[in-house]
Amino acid sequence: MVSERHLHQPQTVISKNKIKYIRSLEMKKHRKANGVFVAEGYKLVGDLLNHYECVYLAATSDWLSAHATWLKAHGEKGLEVDEVTDEELRKISFQETPQQVLAIFRQLNESVDISAVVKSQLCLALDDVQNPGNLGTIVRLADWFGIEHIFCSHSCADIYNPKTVQATMGAMARVQVHYVDLPEVLSGLEQNIPVYGTFLDGENLYHKELANRGVVVMGNEGKGVSKEVEKFVTERLYIPNYPAGRETSESLNVAIATAIVCAEFRRR
Amino acid sequence: MVSERHLHQPQTVISKNKIKYIRSLEMKKHRKANGVFVAEGYKLVGDLLNHYECVYLAATSDWLSAHATWLKAHGEKGLEVDEVTDEELRKISFQETPQQVLAIFRQLNESVDISAVVKSQLCLALDDVQNPGNLGTIVRLADWFGIEHIFCSHSCADIYNPKTVQATMGAMARVQVHYVDLPEVLSGLEQNIPVYGTFLDGENLYHKELANRGVVVMGNEGKGVSKEVEKFVTERLYIPNYPAGRETSESLNVAIATAIVCAEFRRR
Repeated sequence: MVSERHLHQPQTVISKNKIKYIRSLEMKKHRKANGVFVAEGYKLVGDLLNHYECVYLAATSDWLSAHATWLKAHGEKGLEVDEVTDEELRKISFQETPQQVLAIFRQLNESVDISAVVKSQLCLALDDVQNPGNLGTIVRLADWFGIEHIFCSHSCADIYNPKTVQATMGAMARVQVHYVDLPEVLSGLEQNIPVYGTFLDGENLYHKELANRGVVVMGNEGKGVSKEVEKFVTERLYIPNYPAGRETSESLNVAIATAIVCAEFRRR
Repeated sequence: MVSERHLHQPQTVISKNKIKYIRSLEMKKHRKANGVFVAEGYKLVGDLLNHYECVYLAATSDWLSAHATWLKAHGEKGLEVDEVTDEELRKISFQETPQQVLAIFRQLNESVDISAVVKSQLCLALDDVQNPGNLGTIVRLADWFGIEHIFCSHSCADIYNPKTVQATMGAMARVQVHYVDLPEVLSGLEQNIPVYGTFLDGENLYHKELANRGVVVMGNEGKGVSKEVEKFVTERLYIPNYPAGRETSESLNVAIATAIVCAEFRRR
């Protein structure tokens, strides 16, 4: 708990062991073992404070002053707070330019009835999306387009990777990411649930009927949707390039393709 | 020039000075002073070979064998080639997993009559887009949507940054990126040229008339379009979130927003 005294002291020196612990959370195995993750920055930490349980804060006096009310209300629940200078913050930060605060939050383990969810709303499924930044960007755009659930194959980047967390820009407060056996999940869906996927030999996205429910599957950055998952795709889509037939890039970045597909679902 | 002998020798040891030179090209000032940039990987280098002048290649024997015809045709023009092992390649590479080849290309300095171009085709203008990956992703999607010219403010990331080059996935072979004084360029356009921009208080993108020419301005990752540039925007667009009014992310990633806007221009 932060005391009044702390708020006026210029600096808490963070112990070497604590620095080592925080830095260890860059690795998935340490995040998993401790069931926590790191988020940084004024806006992001602010967004997550009300959605995830915060267990540790290293923050400048400015940040602590600005959040005094929140701290008073939550300080009792085993939250540990260090008031730090910008210099101290740099020692523990994963960012090039740390901004006021680094927080450690507890990971969520929410379960969901997938079959029920896909009957009534549009969801995303990510098949081996490897790049942490791409995953974070997809979570952010899913939030924009009101997609509440993303099903990731176990081989996808970790939502709790610091790069992913930062790229979500707070959207992970509203979008639930579930790690699942994707072929198993897709094979268990009812027959009439549409499973969309983008393929270079698919049908023009703008000419297809799109339901506002079901699953949109997006694939790996280099290899696209795997054969194993592809066989469950019922609607093969293609994002037309322009002008048709012109020499162009082989494909779009996976987050870009996801955005274009989601925007078209929501436009209609 | 690569000799037959080289093709059968297992390794050229790259001198320390050369390693130092290559690594120095991670910095803009060194790239600029030498008028060159680095690209890596089988696909990317292959795409750029026919569009940029290659001055140096460090490649595995596999790569050199696969490109023997090209090397024979281009080897005379002052091209320097080192045959390297994967281990040597790792020493000079900017990538986590180097793939077969690292090349140094000469930067382009193509000029363009902007006023003429925007009269007949849709162009992008980037106002202080800072993230190298975002810039590269935007070049790649511009290519997909047949946009041939991107005008960047001088404060934008450098197209020749290795991260940007890699993120273009070869699209920089077809899309021209020009660094300009953006307010000056926009102020010089004819009155009837539409200048589009996305703003949180803009009009629904899907309800606006969109011409297939003019300029789409996209702004900085955190601050959006600057005041200085904003005053030249004639059409204020907004990408609607879904469902309208729901609590959501404050904004979309700049590359994502660019993609959605470009896709909508091209869909029509």
